[in-house]
Amino acid sequence: MNRVRVAIVGATGYTGAELVRILARHPGAELVAVTSERLDGQPLATGAAWLPSELTLQKYDPRAISADVVFLAQESGFAREAAPEWAGRSVIIDLSADFRLVDDATRQSAYGHGPLPDVGPIAYGLPELVPHAEIAQAALIANPGCHVTAAALATVPFQRAGHLLETPVIVSQTGVSGAGRAKRDPAYTFSELAEATSAYGVVGHRHVPELEQVLGRAVRFTPVLVPMTRGMLSVCQFRCDTPDALVPTLRDAYADSPFVRLVESPPSTKQVRGTNRADLYATFDARTGHAVVLCAIDNLGKGAAGQAVQNFNLRFGFPEATGLPMEAVWP
Amino acid sequence: MNRVRVAIVGATGYTGAELVRILARHPGAELVAVTSERLDGQPLATGAAWLPSELTLQKYDPRAISADVVFLAQESGFAREAAPEWAGRSVIIDLSADFRLVDDATRQSAYGHGPLPDVGPIAYGLPELVPHAEIAQAALIANPGCHVTAAALATVPFQRAGHLLETPVIVSQTGVSGAGRAKRDPAYTFSELAEATSAYGVVGHRHVPELEQVLGRAVRFTPVLVPMTRGMLSVCQFRCDTPDALVPTLRDAYADSPFVRLVESPPSTKQVRGTNRADLYATFDARTGHAVVLCAIDNLGKGAAGQAVQNFNLRFGFPEATGLPMEAVWP
Amino acid sequence: MNRVRVAIVGATGYTGAELVRILARHPGAELVAVTSERLDGQPLATGAAWLPSELTLQKYDPRAISADVVFLAQESGFAREAAPEWAGRSVIIDLSADFRLVDDATRQSAYGHGPLPDVGPIAYGLPELVPHAEIAQAALIANPGCHVTAAALATVPFQRAGHLLETPVIVSQTGVSGAGRAKRDPAYTFSELAEATSAYGVVGHRHVPELEQVLGRAVRFTPVLVPMTRGMLSVCQFRCDTPDALVPTLRDAYADSPFVRLVESPPSTKQVRGTNRADLYATFDARTGHAVVLCAIDNLGKGAAGQAVQNFNLRFGFPEATGLPMEAVWP
Amino acid sequence: MNRVRVAIVGATGYTGAELVRILARHPGAELVAVTSERLDGQPLATGAAWLPSELTLQKYDPRAISADVVFLAQESGFAREAAPEWAGRSVIIDLSADFRLVDDATRQSAYGHGPLPDVGPIAYGLPELVPHAEIAQAALIANPGCHVTAAALATVPFQRAGHLLETPVIVSQTGVSGAGRAKRDPAYTFSELAEATSAYGVVGHRHVPELEQVLGRAVRFTPVLVPMTRGMLSVCQFRCDTPDALVPTLRDAYADSPFVRLVESPPSTKQVRGTNRADLYATFDARTGHAVVLCAIDNLGKGAAGQAVQNFNLRFGFPEATGLPMEAVWP
Repeated sequence: MNRVRVAIVGATGYTGAELVRILARHPGAELVAVTSERLDGQPLATGAAWLPSELTLQKYDPRAISADVVFLAQESGFAREAAPEWAGRSVIIDLSADFRLVDDATRQSAYGHGPLPDVGPIAYGLPELVPHAEIAQAALIANPGCHVTAAALATVPFQRAGHLLETPVIVSQTGVSGAGRAKRDPAYTFSELAEATSAYGVVGHRHVPELEQVLGRAVRFTPVLVPMTRGMLSVCQFRCDTPDALVPTLRDAYADSPFVRLVESPPSTKQVRGTNRADLYATFDARTGHAVVLCAIDNLGKGAAGQAVQNFNLRFGFPEATGLPMEAVWP
Repeated sequence: MNRVRVAIVGATGYTGAELVRILARHPGAELVAVTSERLDGQPLATGAAWLPSELTLQKYDPRAISADVVFLAQESGFAREAAPEWAGRSVIIDLSADFRLVDDATRQSAYGHGPLPDVGPIAYGLPELVPHAEIAQAALIANPGCHVTAAALATVPFQRAGHLLETPVIVSQTGVSGAGRAKRDPAYTFSELAEATSAYGVVGHRHVPELEQVLGRAVRFTPVLVPMTRGMLSVCQFRCDTPDALVPTLRDAYADSPFVRLVESPPSTKQVRGTNRADLYATFDARTGHAVVLCAIDNLGKGAAGQAVQNFNLRFGFPEATGLPMEAVWP
Repeated sequence: MNRVRVAIVGATGYTGAELVRILARHPGAELVAVTSERLDGQPLATGAAWLPSELTLQKYDPRAISADVVFLAQESGFAREAAPEWAGRSVIIDLSADFRLVDDATRQSAYGHGPLPDVGPIAYGLPELVPHAEIAQAALIANPGCHVTAAALATVPFQRAGHLLETPVIVSQTGVSGAGRAKRDPAYTFSELAEATSAYGVVGHRHVPELEQVLGRAVRFTPVLVPMTRGMLSVCQFRCDTPDALVPTLRDAYADSPFVRLVESPPSTKQVRGTNRADLYATFDARTGHAVVLCAIDNLGKGAAGQAVQNFNLRFGFPEATGLPMEAVWP
Repeated sequence: MNRVRVAIVGATGYTGAELVRILARHPGAELVAVTSERLDGQPLATGAAWLPSELTLQKYDPRAISADVVFLAQESGFAREAAPEWAGRSVIIDLSADFRLVDDATRQSAYGHGPLPDVGPIAYGLPELVPHAEIAQAALIANPGCHVTAAALATVPFQRAGHLLETPVIVSQTGVSGAGRAKRDPAYTFSELAEATSAYGVVGHRHVPELEQVLGRAVRFTPVLVPMTRGMLSVCQFRCDTPDALVPTLRDAYADSPFVRLVESPPSTKQVRGTNRADLYATFDARTGHAVVLCAIDNLGKGAAGQAVQNFNLRFGFPEATGLPMEAVWP
């Protein structure tokens, strides 16, 4: 088998480095380029001491890179500019928000970007909820946000089955790594965040339009920052008059997914850390007639780099779980 | 001024030791007895190295203790048995759930306790929401639970003002210390909980009947365990058609409280750590027409020992804030 | 290639589960039995939710298990009793201290065990410092302790090269997971250990005789417990009159090791977390004429399960690094 | 009693804010000015949400402030410039390193500062080891560094008593808050430091000359950064031929100190968190003939702001422990 030649743009950020970690062990991938503006010419291990790699970082220069696929692991705004240079030459897997929203006006309002450049067919890469054929034929795959991945896995099956009777209320706990590696805001130092929990973007968080696009209805959404590095726990509540359908609905929806697991006690974020898994738990409160569905993922795994490799597998014809970590590092 | 003679039953547990920490600096209190079954006869500092105290621990023996007030900082069930021995001799401030619920059937169902012994007038010690005169005249003060304190401070004013149009949805993040010091369950070790967030008691948590009693209506309530020792953040959501009334309602409700503060950005649990304060924040989501009210407390401060000392102050005629920490230890 | 049939005794403890995590991805291993006394008959994932495995736990019964190799991941004392039952049938890799010490009197004094049963040739499984042939021919491999692994890698090359002029002074920082999963001591709860650093076993720690056996001379050794789950940092100091030889001595000693890496800035424990690597750093203080050598490992990786799999590879003829994680999960 | 008028320069940094926290409860102090360049005109609580104070921040302008004492809680270099403006008007308590070193050449080499301005008599403010009369008469008090405070308390009595037979080896674990609040280096984010321990400044740390000045001899010193916000544990080792003198030497040295406590088991940093205490523990390793002395302090308490208030007390004639926290916030 010829290996797929892979370039990673932004290889020393958290999602970029997680891509390197996973793809370094992927039997069908060959890393041909890893970029960093700051560390051009240095070994990857200089910028990411946890990756004892032989690779050398290079400045971003699309014309100097020949790859079958390019992962863009950069800040919002980058992919929009860069995609046309790759289109037609390499499949693009974008981990930013640039191409996630379909509606121009919504995107303009949420991110300040108008219409998108034409780069060929775009797929929204949430494979458990999107037809695999779309992903397999895409020129560009827009990799979902972490909050959206967790909340959508917990709610979309109920919406599709007609069991979502009202606006769901979602409180989504997240680890700190979602803020990225280059964060220079003193509010993100260890001293400020250890022993501290706080809500942020209490209403109107940027991920809301994306979640509403996937779900097909409005949501109430509040993220909470908790003192851990990785991990995301979405607590989703909605009124429900078919409690017996809760577990079967999820079971049916994810019967074919190697990554989604229904668990019998409330999951800890730690049990999926470092993996591409999503652990779901559903229960019903008979007193108030509402369902609670929990979804635990790793925000950098299923919420970012893991899911991107899952999309890579679907796009290039590998079995969906190829090379993806399933066992968590515990404790 | 004669100082009030104070006994603390269970002085080496987290709430008991926090009582010692606060009362050791209280100008109107004199610690006359601190009990521990395990460390009878030993210096308090042997069981609580952080309290460099001269006090000696003694076994629990009500007849050997002469005190104006006894704080019972024990597991559920203890106070119910012990209260009659103190009634008439000492004011009782109970930090357990034993005397919190008014309705016998509810208590039986939640805690397995039937009717309560007659110990004289009982007050529910949530001073911001209960008439101070009730507390000032009580023979026994039932100190509220931590989840209930945070959620009630965030929601009761809206219920009383008629702005609570539907069942509120409450997700309450808590630090680990709420589980107590004697926890021998390996699930509470550092190794299991660091980097881990999980929901527990997802529906039907024991604190729900207490919260519904205070609020006067049903609630949806889910607690989430986050990896920090102290701190509690209650995220309360409800449909609201009077957004302009949000902040004024809270301002009116707590105009006279030295401990409740309305803050202008979402509070971190850390900013109230070690104090008896409650920081509240309210906002409105115009898109979905719902309010979000946040309340940050220290689960061992305003959620337990701090509030117990606040009740002590009201009961013995001290200014409400006497001896209570207001500035947090940061970072 | 026929896969080696592997049994893991104590599969839900931290080291046992880490063995499962690694061996589940090892191309030459087939897990045929995983044991747990408490969870006999239950899925492994019930006892270890982070391992979404198909395996079923079984009670320990050596006669019911047919395996080429058995990993004993139990408390001290177990292997000494169990080894004779496996000898001759299966290779034994013991992760406890039972077979590490050669001298009967030292073992008696440190662990209360007298002479060992005869189980065939025993190798001390520290492959960077022990001839591979010994490991390849052993009937039982005694897997080293974590503190010893880190400190020995940092000091033994200097002793062998004649550069260790005095008793080395070693302060070894360790994460909490070294205490094991079943710890029921309240001193190990999250609440007690978060934001807490303390030394323990300040003199006379149990690992000292093992370290002195490997090093061939006395050491001063003090372990320090720090608030993290995994990771170990050994800070080793000794008087040195050949500063220029520091780095070359290490480079020569580990030229053939795939796991030991000399790094150019002081390593963080986090950069080796989840891996079998050891990152070494050496420097010299010209003012006082002493060398400082740092070694960072994962106490459950190179310090336990990773090293055990490395020994497994050497014993069964696989390339030394087969199946062993090299890239850390970061952050 | 007239209260001493206090100004705090840099009131929203960690040490400055800790000064506010302590002095807000000090019966002999009146805060008359708190400065911040960034938040001029704003309430202190805007920059320090954990301090629900009535104070308003102002820009630094010495001519606009009339105070009996000024605490300078700024980066190195500030006090050297600012001190002459205060000299003669206000007592200066400087928490930076500017005035700690006596020798010009040493200071030049360590900090790049030449001779100091003449501001009147300078005292080194380590009250347990310096005559109180020096502090009581000083125009400027140079508050010691945190590493130095912990290591000096553990070793100086032995040097003075002639029991320090060789260069002591000191490994000093520190929490992250020592790096300050304004740290914009991404290496200090929660994501980088959680679950991470590393040594830094392995040889030649800036605090070494200060420690050697206090101790009167050379030291080997290596600091280790551990994942906690506050706390410092100094592990000090030295050859010793008078083991019986260990505890008595410490007991004699600190007989009159309200803050130093000899404890009977190795102290945790957490038991002194938020206080001005230093817990010391000494033991002897008969095998190798060396002593180990441990000292636990809060790096922002006894290691910075607490000690500064202790110096304030001595300078203005208050009992030494006035207003200083003795009981730690636990857990």
